[in-house]
Amino acid sequence: MIPKAKSKFIKSLQIKKYRKQEQCFVVEGKKSVAELIRSEYEVVSLLATREFLAYQRGQGKNIAEVLEVDVDDLTGLGEFKTNDGALAIARMKPNVPLEPGVNEWVLVVDDIRDPGNLGTIIRTADWYGVSKIIASEQTAELYNPKVISATMGSFLRVSLYYTSLPEFLSRSASGIAGAFLDGDDIHHCSFEAGGLLVIGNESRGISEDVARLVTQRITIPKYGRAESLNAGIATAVILDNLRRNQRKV
Amino acid sequence: MIPKAKSKFIKSLQIKKYRKQEQCFVVEGKKSVAELIRSEYEVVSLLATREFLAYQRGQGKNIAEVLEVDVDDLTGLGEFKTNDGALAIARMKPNVPLEPGVNEWVLVVDDIRDPGNLGTIIRTADWYGVSKIIASEQTAELYNPKVISATMGSFLRVSLYYTSLPEFLSRSASGIAGAFLDGDDIHHCSFEAGGLLVIGNESRGISEDVARLVTQRITIPKYGRAESLNAGIATAVILDNLRRNQRKV
Repeated sequence: MIPKAKSKFIKSLQIKKYRKQEQCFVVEGKKSVAELIRSEYEVVSLLATREFLAYQRGQGKNIAEVLEVDVDDLTGLGEFKTNDGALAIARMKPNVPLEPGVNEWVLVVDDIRDPGNLGTIIRTADWYGVSKIIASEQTAELYNPKVISATMGSFLRVSLYYTSLPEFLSRSASGIAGAFLDGDDIHHCSFEAGGLLVIGNESRGISEDVARLVTQRITIPKYGRAESLNAGIATAVILDNLRRNQRKV
Repeated sequence: MIPKAKSKFIKSLQIKKYRKQEQCFVVEGKKSVAELIRSEYEVVSLLATREFLAYQRGQGKNIAEVLEVDVDDLTGLGEFKTNDGALAIARMKPNVPLEPGVNEWVLVVDDIRDPGNLGTIIRTADWYGVSKIIASEQTAELYNPKVISATMGSFLRVSLYYTSLPEFLSRSASGIAGAFLDGDDIHHCSFEAGGLLVIGNESRGISEDVARLVTQRITIPKYGRAESLNAGIATAVILDNLRRNQRKV
């Protein structure tokens, strides 16, 4: 059984205000928790089955509080409907400035409000070898449990930096690519070896202040009749074309 | 004000059992409802603001029941947190068999359980000019309000046929492409002018019974460390490569 105060604390971390106050967030599921334990994140508490704890002890990570629980004890504590045997509370990382390195592509997300979309974008960035994301201040919070779960563990390998995009972009020496309806067809255009790729908000696209700073306007060619693509989908298609283009060089 | 019985009826359509019983589903938002009115779907009821109704009268569609409401009256009736002025109840279409035409690509979804994923796949198919989807019987229901809203209106242009996939695929004369970890790199392989493209379930991929029938094993190249891609993302990246490949021919 989980002490009432503990389960109340875990549930409180679903709410942004309490996450901010405690500087803690929740990671759910054996796979993600196992990756978390192997990461540089500080793990404050671990609640897991006996089997999982045996695994954890082999990892040599110092965890302040470890509780052995049954799978059923974890139900309803977090975002997941059911939990397969592990839940951890980890310490948030500070919001540290990020810059693109030499020949590095970095994503810039302009007000991605939907946590599921942000999580999928992080997972997709990780697949395509992008490890830094610059996020506008209105973007969903990385430590929102819906974001964390949609990343499928990729939040451990991709870093986010929340800042004012017009300020960040106007100081940047990198080329800035952004998707518009009237840009160059990504099936035919060339991409630099590195730069910034801006992904716009789900409903209104790239904001005006950011659009002014874009140096390469690109377009995903359309073959049918949908008016637009989901933001995560657009990110993936552009990154796939970008990587494909770089392979040829 | 909306009569209590009416709002109760609309809310009941969030539940599959009642949708099946009534053979009706809900469409929310001015944009989607406007497209619905111009489509061949039978609209049973329309609840909308005075402005929207003025538009609707211009479309000449016969609607059994029309109610003028305030924007606020629509809040909480459907899947949306807020509604911008229109909600409609439409009649479901029967589950009619679909076959790929000559030189046509058709999607096959193997147990896509998440309604948001299915909706995004339908929207993406519509973008890439795919208008038919064959769905396994365990796939999320098209008329689930989460599916309808994630399609952003594309459910009006893309048809779904629910059936047993092993049966359907074993009768098919078309080539069957499917994504696996050990297939041909989609950046380099060639696609036929038409065929079936199978998208696997979110967590376990393409099922064994279906995998046996795949004739072209393909792979999305990975540049980073994520273990997998979201099912909607994989669909988009494959369709983009497929269309790009066909342009060259």
